[in-house]
Amino acid sequence: MDLLILTPLAAIVALIAAFILAKSVLSAPTGDEKMNDIADAVKEGASAYMNRQYTTITYVAVAIIAVFAAIAFTQEGQASTTWWWTTIGFAVGALFSALSGYAGMSIAVRSNIRVAEAAKSGLPGALKLAFNGGAVSGLAVAGLALLGVAGFFYLFDSVLGLADPVNPLVGFAFGSCLISLFARVGGGIYTKAADVGADLVGKVEAGIPEDDPRNPAVIADNVGDNVGDCAGMGADLFETYAVTVIGALLLGYFLIPEMANPSEIANFMKLVEFPLYLGAFAIIASIISVFFVRMGKDNNIMKALYKGMYASAAISLVGFAWITHSLFSGFDFSLITLEIGGVVGLPLDTTWLDLFLASVVGIFVVVTLVLITEYYTSTKYSPVRKIAKSSETGSATNIISGLAVGMESTLVPTLILVVALFLSYSLAGMYGIAIAAVAMLSVTGMIIAMDTYGPITDNAGGIAEMSNLPDSVRENTDALDAVGNTTKAVTKGYAIGSAALAALVLFADYIFNLQKAMGEEKIVFLLNDPVVLTGLFIGAMLPFLFSSFLMEAVGRAAGAVIEEVRRQFREMPGIMKGETRPDYGACVDIVTKSALKEMVIPGLLAVFAPLIVGFLFGPLALGGLLIGVIASGLMMALMMSNGGGAWDNAKKYIEDGNHGGKGSPAHEAAVVGDTVGDPYKDTAGPSINPLIKVINTVALIFAGLIASIGGILL
Amino acid sequence: MDLLILTPLAAIVALIAAFILAKSVLSAPTGDEKMNDIADAVKEGASAYMNRQYTTITYVAVAIIAVFAAIAFTQEGQASTTWWWTTIGFAVGALFSALSGYAGMSIAVRSNIRVAEAAKSGLPGALKLAFNGGAVSGLAVAGLALLGVAGFFYLFDSVLGLADPVNPLVGFAFGSCLISLFARVGGGIYTKAADVGADLVGKVEAGIPEDDPRNPAVIADNVGDNVGDCAGMGADLFETYAVTVIGALLLGYFLIPEMANPSEIANFMKLVEFPLYLGAFAIIASIISVFFVRMGKDNNIMKALYKGMYASAAISLVGFAWITHSLFSGFDFSLITLEIGGVVGLPLDTTWLDLFLASVVGIFVVVTLVLITEYYTSTKYSPVRKIAKSSETGSATNIISGLAVGMESTLVPTLILVVALFLSYSLAGMYGIAIAAVAMLSVTGMIIAMDTYGPITDNAGGIAEMSNLPDSVRENTDALDAVGNTTKAVTKGYAIGSAALAALVLFADYIFNLQKAMGEEKIVFLLNDPVVLTGLFIGAMLPFLFSSFLMEAVGRAAGAVIEEVRRQFREMPGIMKGETRPDYGACVDIVTKSALKEMVIPGLLAVFAPLIVGFLFGPLALGGLLIGVIASGLMMALMMSNGGGAWDNAKKYIEDGNHGGKGSPAHEAAVVGDTVGDPYKDTAGPSINPLIKVINTVALIFAGLIASIGGILL
Repeated sequence: MDLLILTPLAAIVALIAAFILAKSVLSAPTGDEKMNDIADAVKEGASAYMNRQYTTITYVAVAIIAVFAAIAFTQEGQASTTWWWTTIGFAVGALFSALSGYAGMSIAVRSNIRVAEAAKSGLPGALKLAFNGGAVSGLAVAGLALLGVAGFFYLFDSVLGLADPVNPLVGFAFGSCLISLFARVGGGIYTKAADVGADLVGKVEAGIPEDDPRNPAVIADNVGDNVGDCAGMGADLFETYAVTVIGALLLGYFLIPEMANPSEIANFMKLVEFPLYLGAFAIIASIISVFFVRMGKDNNIMKALYKGMYASAAISLVGFAWITHSLFSGFDFSLITLEIGGVVGLPLDTTWLDLFLASVVGIFVVVTLVLITEYYTSTKYSPVRKIAKSSETGSATNIISGLAVGMESTLVPTLILVVALFLSYSLAGMYGIAIAAVAMLSVTGMIIAMDTYGPITDNAGGIAEMSNLPDSVRENTDALDAVGNTTKAVTKGYAIGSAALAALVLFADYIFNLQKAMGEEKIVFLLNDPVVLTGLFIGAMLPFLFSSFLMEAVGRAAGAVIEEVRRQFREMPGIMKGETRPDYGACVDIVTKSALKEMVIPGLLAVFAPLIVGFLFGPLALGGLLIGVIASGLMMALMMSNGGGAWDNAKKYIEDGNHGGKGSPAHEAAVVGDTVGDPYKDTAGPSINPLIKVINTVALIFAGLIASIGGILL
Repeated sequence: MDLLILTPLAAIVALIAAFILAKSVLSAPTGDEKMNDIADAVKEGASAYMNRQYTTITYVAVAIIAVFAAIAFTQEGQASTTWWWTTIGFAVGALFSALSGYAGMSIAVRSNIRVAEAAKSGLPGALKLAFNGGAVSGLAVAGLALLGVAGFFYLFDSVLGLADPVNPLVGFAFGSCLISLFARVGGGIYTKAADVGADLVGKVEAGIPEDDPRNPAVIADNVGDNVGDCAGMGADLFETYAVTVIGALLLGYFLIPEMANPSEIANFMKLVEFPLYLGAFAIIASIISVFFVRMGKDNNIMKALYKGMYASAAISLVGFAWITHSLFSGFDFSLITLEIGGVVGLPLDTTWLDLFLASVVGIFVVVTLVLITEYYTSTKYSPVRKIAKSSETGSATNIISGLAVGMESTLVPTLILVVALFLSYSLAGMYGIAIAAVAMLSVTGMIIAMDTYGPITDNAGGIAEMSNLPDSVRENTDALDAVGNTTKAVTKGYAIGSAALAALVLFADYIFNLQKAMGEEKIVFLLNDPVVLTGLFIGAMLPFLFSSFLMEAVGRAAGAVIEEVRRQFREMPGIMKGETRPDYGACVDIVTKSALKEMVIPGLLAVFAPLIVGFLFGPLALGGLLIGVIASGLMMALMMSNGGGAWDNAKKYIEDGNHGGKGSPAHEAAVVGDTVGDPYKDTAGPSINPLIKVINTVALIFAGLIASIGGILL
């Protein structure tokens, strides 16, 4: 029997587990009619937005499919087959990415009301329910990603027996990250435009509390949590998973020596299959780990959530040791292709233990990244407290301090990543880096669960507030939500950290693709070559430009919301008295339109920037661009995600009664910081991960064409 | 006669011209006693700070001299000689850098009062006087830089006949940029801590206008303009000039083939001398251009200032054509060393015209960078107006918009630089890039003049305000000052743009030094080598970490000022009534101490980061670090300088009566943006240029040692 079939099967098991867990979540009671009214409004708004978002994206996807199909027509032989399967892979990747987004959103808009209801009877039950809601999303997303990659590979390799069963997967990778980019960008703009708009008129101008039902933008705000934080994040981690595994598969495939005979190739295919087996085991570990999340006697919520993540990492590690030993204990590495553009692919003296240790490096990265992110964004440590203190002297010093904390927070993650890079490369060459990146994925399910948990509890609080539930309910949801900012920041740190490693693997794949396309010619990327540097500078600039677009977009869309809310307050004076129901739909509609309009240009920038640089300045400049965008994107993403999280929690820390508490001048200053942090951490910052991936996969797909043209300006 | 003697002589002519111009500025009337009182307080505060700053820096410099001397002792033969002269060069470079800072500060604190007096009788006279004050600084700084480089080279080559007359110059480069870094950092912290502190308590809390004599921090604020914007900037552009020319000299020297015979070498030395001749001609052009600055009938101040810059560029270009033709029209390039780490040093088919065109590229960079910077920071264009408009919805949207403008402003300068890189490299290899960078220096004198002009008029306004001169005087100084934000942003864009090109030349020099140290072994920096990437990621992170230190430092120091001002208001109620003179000295003292304390760690970070990476991970990682710090530093510097300038002018635009004018909610929001922009644009942003240079020169100096160790962890 072909053991490989186990890998898509494990994914299906995860999907079934997600389904069963979803049934159990949905069986929880949903509360009274008023609660249901509100929850329904949020659900409808979210579904309506998602439908329109994916309709818009479909146009882009169809255009790309047309271009790919046209290219496939012009090619011949194996190139044509590869392009056809790339096209199909793209379509399926896009579809799965959309499904991941839907899965995250659907369960979240159904869990929130049930969590609000459960919060009536205490913290532990509500925590469990909220986490389980998140876990549905986590298992579904990771399951879909593994199913897509493992299923396609099984189809190409074992069923169809394609001569090149690996390269068409890049289409799947591209589809998944392109759609994720749009979902992250569109959802990110939606959620923050609604949030900023609702806050600025509601809290600041009208002086009504957050989630007050008199605020016409309140439903849009709650919709935003679901389409941005749940759907966008689900799509984002879907592509993180898919692209990382595909990058590793490709690298393993490229390492197989060209002169190997069929039986040798069958043996070497283990290098390709290895990442899939790791993923399959990890996803089963994730299912088991769901049961580890429960609150101890200390009522420590963060600790309860961490239990799941640590369990999943620990179980995975045991499995990884077993898998690595089984596959590679007697493996002969001495025939491996050694060099990738002058760099070691896989050393001759590699052992199974080296590969296992490379996976340990990946787990080390996850754990340390999580801890350092918590340090920078939790109310318990000095960075957040420093921002809170600086709020005493006004919003300007709050902003200066938050910017500084964001910038400073690049230090340790960068050091963690370079140590990981250095160690995994020393252990097992470029392939070691790929394995470390894949090992990081083992906790994807739990990370998504922790992240989705945040907006579920946030929404639960909103529903409690809007349906006038007793204060004790809101207190419980607030307690649950308090760690939400940190878990969200953790997810982003995790995603960008894994992106950095994965992108380096993709870069190695890119070099392989170029070498294949250019035949005998060796391709070497010199750091001091002005052509390479041309690309590198442009690449380093792109995350800045991209972030600027997104920040501006949020500003513009929020402005439209503000005007609409002001109009409603002006024209319907009954709203503030609580006599007239505001026109929630009008706000939802405005944010929807704005988000869809604003998401297109940044998305196209990601696709066209590498193509323009590649076709104008050639493959060397494009390589420089890839590294430039990784290096500067990593810093920007860390700065914005952590800085924004710290601002948000500095406000929460003040609201907890420090520096004068709610309503004090310090609190007012902290609200400004929080508002600035919103597009920083929830729109621009998290969109950089898919940005990097889209640019890398575009480069991979077009490497052959670009190599054959070689740069129009050269 | 050795024509080379003309190059230090031209520098001396510039210094004499500066002296004569200074005499003419100082002969202008100084106004009444009250004005003199205030101006004297500023002068004394500035001198006191500068003395203490340079005393502190002296400790660092002496420590470095001791280390260098110790290394020189351990070396033998030519290496020992080179290290000794490097040590002496370091000391002289440090001294000259300090002198440049002094020159900028001294003339500024004497011009301000005279400009205030001249403003009584109209705009044109005051403009001319303020610009001439700036021009003294410009000619002095450029003159000192050229004198140092050309004088040392003449000494080493023509007088002492050193076997290696070029490498010891790196000591001079290191000395100049290290001291400049401290001056930029210390001065930047000083000026912004005083500014932010004075504004937050004075304007925001006490509700008194800017420059009100009742504000105890007002003198410190005015002192800050001089020690930060004048002295810091003077030192900064001094090192920009010195390091760029030295980088070009080194590259020219390395291109000389090792097997050349003495007469061939004499001929090839033209490549080394060429940058010096360009500098000598340009400095004479600068002297002439001073006379071009005068206001037309349209009263357009910016245009008047640009006349000087364009004149200087145009005259230089004519001279460059003549010099290039004279030196290279019959030159045989076919013996040149072709390769630097796999990259073309100077193509065999280079002609004098190619070299001249490379210098045209440099001028093109200056002009386009100036124009794009003006676009992003002037009240006339949409970026600043967008920020002003977004202030209507509060400080949060103002900040979001300003952050976005800063990020967006990286696009065009990056494209300008990569086009320049690509063109100058296509024309004449790496040497072409060096010549483009040197050509950029031709306008240094004028740029410094335009920049110093800003704080002079700013201070003149302060003196007018504090000594109760008629409103018409303040109006005139305000009109002059309005373009000051733009000219200051222009200077920073210019400095960082030139730093990017110069740093690439230094990187080529670094590779040459490594190759020399490693003998036969070829050194190749592969972009996909994880060791190189380790350095590259760390390098990309450094500008973020460095900026974070500086932003925090300003926050802390400003906090100390705020507390002191509050204390004075509290304990001396007579101050607000105008009956008691505030204790200005106490504030000056506090800022001085804070700035000196805070400047040490960022300074040491710049020195030790490359050493740690180099000695731990070896020369390849250090090379990666150099490129990483250039790429991300370029973006950060552009973002912060332009963003800060735009914030400042958005406030000015509102104060001009737009969006509600002074005192409106939009104005209040814009003040917050301006305050955030202060450390952004005047502390962190401009310090990145010397940061990049220090890291590069440290790498150059220690290349040999690091190559011999090769990385402890490898």
